[in-house]
Amino acid sequence: MNPNKCITLLTDFGDRDIYVGVMKGVIAQINPLLNIVDLTHHIPPQNLLAARFALLNAYPYFPLGTVHVAVVDPGVGSSRRGLAIQLTDGYVVCPDNGLSSGILDSASAAVELTNSQYWRVSNPSYTFHGRDIFAPVGAHLGTGVPLSRLGQRVDLDSLVRLDLPPIEVNQPHIIGSIQYIDHFGNLITNIQGELLSGKSWQIIIKNIEIRSARTYSDVNTGQAVSLIGSHGWVEIAVNGGSAAQQFQLTEKDKVQLTIN
Amino acid sequence: MNPNKCITLLTDFGDRDIYVGVMKGVIAQINPLLNIVDLTHHIPPQNLLAARFALLNAYPYFPLGTVHVAVVDPGVGSSRRGLAIQLTDGYVVCPDNGLSSGILDSASAAVELTNSQYWRVSNPSYTFHGRDIFAPVGAHLGTGVPLSRLGQRVDLDSLVRLDLPPIEVNQPHIIGSIQYIDHFGNLITNIQGELLSGKSWQIIIKNIEIRSARTYSDVNTGQAVSLIGSHGWVEIAVNGGSAAQQFQLTEKDKVQLTIN
Amino acid sequence: MNPNKCITLLTDFGDRDIYVGVMKGVIAQINPLLNIVDLTHHIPPQNLLAARFALLNAYPYFPLGTVHVAVVDPGVGSSRRGLAIQLTDGYVVCPDNGLSSGILDSASAAVELTNSQYWRVSNPSYTFHGRDIFAPVGAHLGTGVPLSRLGQRVDLDSLVRLDLPPIEVNQPHIIGSIQYIDHFGNLITNIQGELLSGKSWQIIIKNIEIRSARTYSDVNTGQAVSLIGSHGWVEIAVNGGSAAQQFQLTEKDKVQLTIN
Repeated sequence: MNPNKCITLLTDFGDRDIYVGVMKGVIAQINPLLNIVDLTHHIPPQNLLAARFALLNAYPYFPLGTVHVAVVDPGVGSSRRGLAIQLTDGYVVCPDNGLSSGILDSASAAVELTNSQYWRVSNPSYTFHGRDIFAPVGAHLGTGVPLSRLGQRVDLDSLVRLDLPPIEVNQPHIIGSIQYIDHFGNLITNIQGELLSGKSWQIIIKNIEIRSARTYSDVNTGQAVSLIGSHGWVEIAVNGGSAAQQFQLTEKDKVQLTIN
Repeated sequence: MNPNKCITLLTDFGDRDIYVGVMKGVIAQINPLLNIVDLTHHIPPQNLLAARFALLNAYPYFPLGTVHVAVVDPGVGSSRRGLAIQLTDGYVVCPDNGLSSGILDSASAAVELTNSQYWRVSNPSYTFHGRDIFAPVGAHLGTGVPLSRLGQRVDLDSLVRLDLPPIEVNQPHIIGSIQYIDHFGNLITNIQGELLSGKSWQIIIKNIEIRSARTYSDVNTGQAVSLIGSHGWVEIAVNGGSAAQQFQLTEKDKVQLTIN
Repeated sequence: MNPNKCITLLTDFGDRDIYVGVMKGVIAQINPLLNIVDLTHHIPPQNLLAARFALLNAYPYFPLGTVHVAVVDPGVGSSRRGLAIQLTDGYVVCPDNGLSSGILDSASAAVELTNSQYWRVSNPSYTFHGRDIFAPVGAHLGTGVPLSRLGQRVDLDSLVRLDLPPIEVNQPHIIGSIQYIDHFGNLITNIQGELLSGKSWQIIIKNIEIRSARTYSDVNTGQAVSLIGSHGWVEIAVNGGSAAQQFQLTEKDKVQLTIN
């Protein structure tokens, strides 16, 4: 047993019902010593891009060997595969729908979850694989069951990918896309902040020039600003407001910035 | 001490205030090794039927010996009794208002919480027995204090019951009632799915015929469907919509299905 | 190591994004045995009075030595200090903005968090000190690192204070202020209930006379009532409604009560 190993849960189940609590009960039935951490259960329903962003940005902050159980699963009950993936710093257990794409670069192996011995029951519900397959498999993995026992090996190249187009760098311009909108309405792009460290830049959207700054409060309330967020990505925010509402932009929309 | 024994919390306290956090602090003061799991704190205020449903449907998924502390308590401050109930697989600590009715069939003993030695203080708040009585009693029970020490034994037949009328089976018809509406607006009946395994059926509500299927996505977006939910009950859903809104049905309303 | 020492988290981060989950990951990276409890993450954005109230009222219910990590931080990225404060029963780790004012009476020492050895990284994000400074410092403190190692000692008198004006007692009148509005819309004053134990009183607001009672249900639905809440403060509530809406009062507004 690996006492106090971390299991994270990431879902779109919300917190009104008992679905998340039941997943935790199933994990505790298998190993009550596992340390369960909620990433969030408020991924917008079936929004795989948002789940991908959440997993990608939470992954670096957990202990080595952490098992991330991620269940945003529009295809539940269909023939989509269930996966366990081994990464450099931990594991992901999730449906094969692209939500793990952001961290697959560090993947070294993956299995399809075909061994029902590690499921809660051999005849799982058609609608709740989180309870019957993903949570119990995550608990067994966190308890020390080797990946290879969980099912048959699959080729990493066969995994469903969900990626934004790569950013285009044409100095002094960089074109990226919006990959996530947080609950403040901040527009988070897929442009890495490290490309801009020590520099200032501007973004023009709908004829409004947005200047770069270090922090939200560097501009007046109601004003837009672009900065490198705590997650390391270039984002566009409105101090005390919602950039998503003000600029009417959404996920996958393109954004061009110009370095000064 | 029983290390890492599970304590679940089920309330209508929401998550805006510190009430739930304070209950967890009180539990940790008594035994920091207990493993606290939130079922949900978003039971609609004082909705005992919803609390009953949540407890009934979460109960099977927790480790043996789990203590379920359930505080939906419209009668707090009145003379309603506080209870600890021993069940086959664990315990419930709750007010005597029927919220445990769904799992009482497996009850073997109950006590009224009269022994203030196991309360947080002997003069509890009039409005927050969750903090002053139910959480500490749950923590002591999870730590190994025998049920009989918590208060005086009460007759199981004396416990307040809260039950829907039993379903009526008249082949090929089954009449049941709606016992819960989840946050998607799915209408969950009290008809057990096992009565229908391998069969198809239909339900007519307000002249709309609702056919059975295996999963939500078996019908088009906006269409109604009836299926056996992950909890094992027959439910009525609208793919991508709210059945509660579309059909204007609510808890306790009757539903008739016809097996094909 | 101090196994299972309690760390509480109090923020205005909400639960839509992964910010809170990431703080928990950072804590688990430092010490996976710490017992993390959420106070609430729904403090209204940057509302320091609400954070002050939450911390003050949760503090007494946690085990000795608990570390309270409180991050409501309008000044993040500015030169405001980060603090660790030693209290009689535990510690607070927070920005120096007054949110700890309610419990400073029991403080015995404080340090400014200048020792980056106990941060997650020596170059913290400008916008997320919760992840990079406060959570890791809290984890180290909970693991046994002495307060004095975390940075340079500061004078307790130099800490930013955030306090309501003291109540004015002129028998039979007491004038206080509203210090918090909970999610039911109950108006919680800064008048201690112990001043009124065994007494009855009335409050007149906008020509409506509000009588005292023991519990909410002592008045009819829709009627206002004043009582001593579970937190020990005099509050004004509307049974089944919102006193904040009905009386259009807000934080810091004055309230006069008259003892009968």
